[in-house]
Amino acid sequence: MKYLLISNHRKKHTTTMAREVAVWLQDHAIACDIDDAYEPTASGPFDLIIVLGGDGTMLRAARRYGQCRIPILGVNLGTVGSMSNIKSSELLPYLPQVVAGNYTLEHRLMLTVRVYDSSALISESHCLNECVLKSTGARMIRFTVQIDNGHQHSFSGDGLMVATPTGSSAYSLSVGGPLLDPGMQALLLTPLAANTIAWRPVVLGPERCVALRPIDCDEAILCLDGQTCLSPQPGRWIEIRRAEELLPLVKLKEKPFLQTINSRLKPFNG
Amino acid sequence: MKYLLISNHRKKHTTTMAREVAVWLQDHAIACDIDDAYEPTASGPFDLIIVLGGDGTMLRAARRYGQCRIPILGVNLGTVGSMSNIKSSELLPYLPQVVAGNYTLEHRLMLTVRVYDSSALISESHCLNECVLKSTGARMIRFTVQIDNGHQHSFSGDGLMVATPTGSSAYSLSVGGPLLDPGMQALLLTPLAANTIAWRPVVLGPERCVALRPIDCDEAILCLDGQTCLSPQPGRWIEIRRAEELLPLVKLKEKPFLQTINSRLKPFNG
Amino acid sequence: MKYLLISNHRKKHTTTMAREVAVWLQDHAIACDIDDAYEPTASGPFDLIIVLGGDGTMLRAARRYGQCRIPILGVNLGTVGSMSNIKSSELLPYLPQVVAGNYTLEHRLMLTVRVYDSSALISESHCLNECVLKSTGARMIRFTVQIDNGHQHSFSGDGLMVATPTGSSAYSLSVGGPLLDPGMQALLLTPLAANTIAWRPVVLGPERCVALRPIDCDEAILCLDGQTCLSPQPGRWIEIRRAEELLPLVKLKEKPFLQTINSRLKPFNG
Amino acid sequence: MKYLLISNHRKKHTTTMAREVAVWLQDHAIACDIDDAYEPTASGPFDLIIVLGGDGTMLRAARRYGQCRIPILGVNLGTVGSMSNIKSSELLPYLPQVVAGNYTLEHRLMLTVRVYDSSALISESHCLNECVLKSTGARMIRFTVQIDNGHQHSFSGDGLMVATPTGSSAYSLSVGGPLLDPGMQALLLTPLAANTIAWRPVVLGPERCVALRPIDCDEAILCLDGQTCLSPQPGRWIEIRRAEELLPLVKLKEKPFLQTINSRLKPFNG
Repeated sequence: MKYLLISNHRKKHTTTMAREVAVWLQDHAIACDIDDAYEPTASGPFDLIIVLGGDGTMLRAARRYGQCRIPILGVNLGTVGSMSNIKSSELLPYLPQVVAGNYTLEHRLMLTVRVYDSSALISESHCLNECVLKSTGARMIRFTVQIDNGHQHSFSGDGLMVATPTGSSAYSLSVGGPLLDPGMQALLLTPLAANTIAWRPVVLGPERCVALRPIDCDEAILCLDGQTCLSPQPGRWIEIRRAEELLPLVKLKEKPFLQTINSRLKPFNG
Repeated sequence: MKYLLISNHRKKHTTTMAREVAVWLQDHAIACDIDDAYEPTASGPFDLIIVLGGDGTMLRAARRYGQCRIPILGVNLGTVGSMSNIKSSELLPYLPQVVAGNYTLEHRLMLTVRVYDSSALISESHCLNECVLKSTGARMIRFTVQIDNGHQHSFSGDGLMVATPTGSSAYSLSVGGPLLDPGMQALLLTPLAANTIAWRPVVLGPERCVALRPIDCDEAILCLDGQTCLSPQPGRWIEIRRAEELLPLVKLKEKPFLQTINSRLKPFNG
Repeated sequence: MKYLLISNHRKKHTTTMAREVAVWLQDHAIACDIDDAYEPTASGPFDLIIVLGGDGTMLRAARRYGQCRIPILGVNLGTVGSMSNIKSSELLPYLPQVVAGNYTLEHRLMLTVRVYDSSALISESHCLNECVLKSTGARMIRFTVQIDNGHQHSFSGDGLMVATPTGSSAYSLSVGGPLLDPGMQALLLTPLAANTIAWRPVVLGPERCVALRPIDCDEAILCLDGQTCLSPQPGRWIEIRRAEELLPLVKLKEKPFLQTINSRLKPFNG
Repeated sequence: MKYLLISNHRKKHTTTMAREVAVWLQDHAIACDIDDAYEPTASGPFDLIIVLGGDGTMLRAARRYGQCRIPILGVNLGTVGSMSNIKSSELLPYLPQVVAGNYTLEHRLMLTVRVYDSSALISESHCLNECVLKSTGARMIRFTVQIDNGHQHSFSGDGLMVATPTGSSAYSLSVGGPLLDPGMQALLLTPLAANTIAWRPVVLGPERCVALRPIDCDEAILCLDGQTCLSPQPGRWIEIRRAEELLPLVKLKEKPFLQTINSRLKPFNG
């Protein structure tokens, strides 16, 4: 049995925690690698991944290992996220249960984002929260939106987001999107400052494919989980669909999903 | 082979149309009953139901026959709805294709609404668009909302709606809900004037069960599809879940679902 | 010098508090009446009104005395409201300052609501938060909305609200309205579940007059501050405009108005 | 008497129109300059400015001449805007009335935007629609928002806009802001994807001053009317308040302002 521990080298308490967990695991005859800096030193196969960090660390881990069918346990060392299941203080008490396999899995839909030049595939990436094509300048950007083989609807505005149910409580919520049951399979299309107020958040079935074709996107970026950015160069277009594999999140205890909204309710100070 | 034609006796052109269609069907050796006034004279079994009318007639037909596994063809004689597939002028040209079975079915999720007194079932109804518990007075109503066996969240406000994907383009859209892919299976929880602005539209997986337990609902009604109304008497509570059977809608041609929003864009006159 | 103390006879601590304040005032040679039950025993003229209670008590006081040009001090004995300036525990320490006139006034716009039968005035009322014409049944109501002598726009939906800047943090906020600077002079038109999604919250200049003319309002009420209700009988129409007098609220300390939104952020429990 | 005609040298029909109008004016003994390229060749003083173009041309004219107390007549050669009063085909018929002074003025509030480095004024600009500080990258930006001398509220998100009543029907509407009576005097604060959902559109009295102080704005721009862009360099802060002079728009006929929303209702095509 071999585990992978992922920490964030810029957050010292996560690396300290990783070493503590590593000691515990070795005492219990479980090998482990630590991925501290996202360098390719980790050599699997792994039976379980433990992610120590905030939302950012979890999102990076999901993009990197989310399609490998390895259970991932999110341990929250930052603010409460919709992807982590336990707090750091709970990890050591829960480890025996984790090692014994006494947990259920919650499968989360991820996205596969492909950039094409005509029909040539240029890049393929995955993300867990959302993929957004958005303006980086003062002016509106323009592109078409096509669902499956349907009509190419024109869009003018700040941009358009395709979010997962997991991502529905993140960026999408800020721009007026609904909250989605995290375990459900659906794609959420949320407009950013659409010029026609006919655009509303739209929930699509999981097998839908969304194609975005730039018309006037000179000043625009394509962002995955707010971290990876691609430039929508002229002549290229973007295809967004569900990723092939569901992300298997380790679930040790129930967490009512409506409460994920609480972390977004910071009051006005003063 | 026997068809059922449903028209609206208060709209004369629907009854005229029904007679025309009946003649055509009889000429083609298909028996048919006409349900004009929703009287129990229709005697099945039927192989197909044709609904001639607007959204209201379609909703009534769905509530009455939607759980019988009989394909239903909606013919739009009013404003364009998300449930009808063709216009009245298209019906006769399309009839040979309908009779030959050259169509696909689009399955729509319906709701089953049960009212309980303690654990005794008082009533059971079905609806296609939405079920809403809402205030009829000046003051906020209060009740709890429980999803499956989870926490009972308290709600204060004008009310709460559980809508289907079909209903997402109807009343729910007016109160800020997202548009749902009509063929998908999900429940949409849309708050009406919630007192805490933490409430947002929530999309639930199709197997979720929503229970509403009145706390202070003296002036409130429970409405199904804006037509049937129940009174949430003290001591009673309401359970809303997906209906057992999907409604099989006859689909003769594609209709991009984003365009259902167009009928809601009436401009300001003047 | 004579003060009026307003308490809520259904909330015992407000009546106890009123007696305490009355003793203090008499010790300082200030006469006072106590209006406990809103009976017409109070005989002015009064130099100042102190309202002990929650938002409901304050709204009632404003409707009754808000056009009399008497400064009103709101003392919060319930949840924090946008109309009260100090908490009950602060009242006695602040009283010497109040009596000495060491305070500023914050003038709040109120509404005058007139109901007409043809051109005959049937009733005239005032309110501080909002006036809303809304459905009490399952179906949409229909009426026209006219601003000054402009076009009569037709409205279908659950209803329409005219709120004051003070009311913008109350019911209007729940249905998606903006927050208005409480001291500004403007009228806020907020739609409730408008059938056409073209309707948005609209902020009008303070001299605008809004006329609502029922078309199909059989099941509707006209509510003022969620307390007084009128029935929009056939043939009658409603005129809403700013009240002649501004309500002079006593201000003893600054209260950043963005923070009034905090009381609406109740998190999900669980 | 001398008029200034403003056209857009990139739109040929506006320059053609300008020459036509110039001929008419000279025939009627009115001198005129043509400002085609926004070069400083125009030499006033002018008695009236006629702007031939779309919203963009009007916004540029307002920023340049809007503080000079010269009446401006907007002639719409593009899509209908909230700033233009007549269509190009109506201009020649209306010119005699314009020359005779038979019009009213509608005064519109403009903004003055000042950028400071510590207390040193770096730049001062004016705008008619809105001023927005917004992210140009993948990540949220952070800054504080202070109204007058009040608390410095922290903001995280895509950005924040201060719009005028005129601008309320433009960019601000796209991000969920209310519509403001164009002739009223108020400032509209509209958040872009605020991280805490406590942020709502806020309408401020016209004398309020809004100060934005960057905390983490490495990838951000400050845009005025979607045209002029400033970079919020570290150590600098921004002050936004009403401009000293109101823009005097020439009004030849009534235009119900609710209808400005109609131009934003483009239906889904397909």
